[in-house]
Amino acid sequence: MPVIIPADSVGLVSPQTLHIDTPITLDCGRTLASYDLVYETYGKLNTDKSNAVLICHALSGDHHAAGYHDMDDKKPGWWDTAIGPGKAIDTNYFFVVSLNNLGGCKGSTGPTSINPETGKIYGPDFPIVTVSDWVESQSVLADHLAIQQWAAVVGGSLGGMQAMQWAISQPERLRHALIIAAAPKLSAQNIAFNEVARTAIKSDPDFHDGHYTAHNTLPRHGLGLARMLGHITYLSDVAMGEKFGRALRNDTINYGYDVDFQIESYLRYQSENFVDRFDANTYLLMTKALDYFDPAKEFNDDLTATMAQIKAKCLVVSFSTDWRFSPERSNEIVNAMLNAGTDVTYAEIEAHQGHDAFLMSIGRYIDIFQTYMQKIAAEDGDS
Amino acid sequence: MPVIIPADSVGLVSPQTLHIDTPITLDCGRTLASYDLVYETYGKLNTDKSNAVLICHALSGDHHAAGYHDMDDKKPGWWDTAIGPGKAIDTNYFFVVSLNNLGGCKGSTGPTSINPETGKIYGPDFPIVTVSDWVESQSVLADHLAIQQWAAVVGGSLGGMQAMQWAISQPERLRHALIIAAAPKLSAQNIAFNEVARTAIKSDPDFHDGHYTAHNTLPRHGLGLARMLGHITYLSDVAMGEKFGRALRNDTINYGYDVDFQIESYLRYQSENFVDRFDANTYLLMTKALDYFDPAKEFNDDLTATMAQIKAKCLVVSFSTDWRFSPERSNEIVNAMLNAGTDVTYAEIEAHQGHDAFLMSIGRYIDIFQTYMQKIAAEDGDS
Repeated sequence: MPVIIPADSVGLVSPQTLHIDTPITLDCGRTLASYDLVYETYGKLNTDKSNAVLICHALSGDHHAAGYHDMDDKKPGWWDTAIGPGKAIDTNYFFVVSLNNLGGCKGSTGPTSINPETGKIYGPDFPIVTVSDWVESQSVLADHLAIQQWAAVVGGSLGGMQAMQWAISQPERLRHALIIAAAPKLSAQNIAFNEVARTAIKSDPDFHDGHYTAHNTLPRHGLGLARMLGHITYLSDVAMGEKFGRALRNDTINYGYDVDFQIESYLRYQSENFVDRFDANTYLLMTKALDYFDPAKEFNDDLTATMAQIKAKCLVVSFSTDWRFSPERSNEIVNAMLNAGTDVTYAEIEAHQGHDAFLMSIGRYIDIFQTYMQKIAAEDGDS
Repeated sequence: MPVIIPADSVGLVSPQTLHIDTPITLDCGRTLASYDLVYETYGKLNTDKSNAVLICHALSGDHHAAGYHDMDDKKPGWWDTAIGPGKAIDTNYFFVVSLNNLGGCKGSTGPTSINPETGKIYGPDFPIVTVSDWVESQSVLADHLAIQQWAAVVGGSLGGMQAMQWAISQPERLRHALIIAAAPKLSAQNIAFNEVARTAIKSDPDFHDGHYTAHNTLPRHGLGLARMLGHITYLSDVAMGEKFGRALRNDTINYGYDVDFQIESYLRYQSENFVDRFDANTYLLMTKALDYFDPAKEFNDDLTATMAQIKAKCLVVSFSTDWRFSPERSNEIVNAMLNAGTDVTYAEIEAHQGHDAFLMSIGRYIDIFQTYMQKIAAEDGDS
């Protein structure tokens, strides 16, 4: 049965592809002679091109942030709670740009793309891409769209890190950065979880050192394990407890090694669902981009000096039960910004949903988000 | 170079094996006609047999809790910080019994043992053993040692759950239960981590449905992954940060998928070290024993009614940064005990080491532990 598209949806949308022939040299030292970026836009760019908002996606996200690709879609884009007419990022006012990042697996050039130099897919030979590289490639997309300055760059989690990096390394090209559920760099524990995920993928015999496509296989078990583990870190203990508790899948325990508890079924389902829609080499790449993110490194590990680069105004948001990037990590960002004299607004949202809260329709969060975006629109109207 | 055995060590110790021919019927419904329990003892049983302390081990522990097996041992037993002459569990006074649990892989009957009915190793056909089953088999060991009543049953983590179960199901057979870094049952998040570990083991092609010995293989990758993940949950974010931070193994990042950070090397080392000394089927069994532990289930999920069974006095200890079994989980135990009228002492220890703190020499923890044990000794002297 086709969906009935809600009135506050951006409606049916189609991705576009920008082919870029200007070479990009990445942080790792390698150069891509050409590359594609797939993106979607919602709303209309105004005549003075002052209403553009860039959405940056997280680890497993893509360009499809809002609306529907066709009438048979069961679900809208991944941030449809926040983007649409009358929503926090109001497409009646803003022109929203959402892309699949370089190194992704949903259409932008990445490990699943053909390497024009060899005629074969890149696979594991695709270079590691950093958050800075993404900002660089996103600025090429901005140039193409003739957007000299974003009204705002917005993202959650790894997306929030991109918004932060934009504000630090391209200070003239954005007026606002919205940094949601992020951290100034990963902790040892964050890196440890990523390393377990990578080890799971790499030790799957179907991984073949990343050349699984050539072997007509997929590292399903390894990628599935990585996703299961990811899910645990995205949810809070409280949220998992409320959703599943110790509920059994059947009435009794099995006294065996099959699924006993509903939480186990849920994780299995999530992982099986994921391996069919995501590329393992891209997953590895994304986790390394996370691990490597550390903008203060260029500034002698001085986070205040780093934030002193920023000219944009910032909104930083964290969630009380997020233990992946906890409120303490947002405090580090905010304290450095305050020391650096950045114009920053901070909100810690009480929410039991853990890290995933940034994707959800949580009253106070959406209120603050919307109010902040309305302020941007009003500033723009004044100028 | 041989070790110099410290003066406060129990010194050189030798395990003993008790062969039991009285059948045991397990919670799963299956019966073992006979089984072995390997154990060590430290100190001397007094004439009225009132000074015996039972040590219960956690997931990957064994009977070797204190002292050295030979002069070439690099490390003493796993709880040598707490057991020895003049230590918290003072072997100058107490007679300490420490066994490898049924289902273990260090000498007691378990998946690596020969099934007398088939002449082949049990492997995955070994029945799942519960915490209640362990208490039952430990009480057979107590009978054999002519210990009618333990002065104390002591354990951390899964070991603390055994101490709790003893107090609930054999109330006359212990005077004290020391329940350290435990929980009254696992949360959905706890179960989720166990399920990821199990999935890692079971999806390793070298696992062969648990029959890896028959195939002359070992599920090294799967068991290693389980151990890596376990380690993350044993340490706090703070402790990992202090120990490793974002320190690199070499001077620069690789822009590749090999080890960049020291935390990654550490986890790899821990996992490689573990797979040579632990059995994968036993690991699965232990995680299920954890998942199934829920003593209140027999009492209509009423934890107070459960604790009302207890006649022993209890010491409950938690650690501030333990996020595997957090202080909140110990509070659940303590609150139910208080409601039930149990004589309970509770201490939450400020410690940055996370769950592993229970194995460490942390001042206030050891002080409280020692004071409590001295009180037991004094009571015993009075009687």
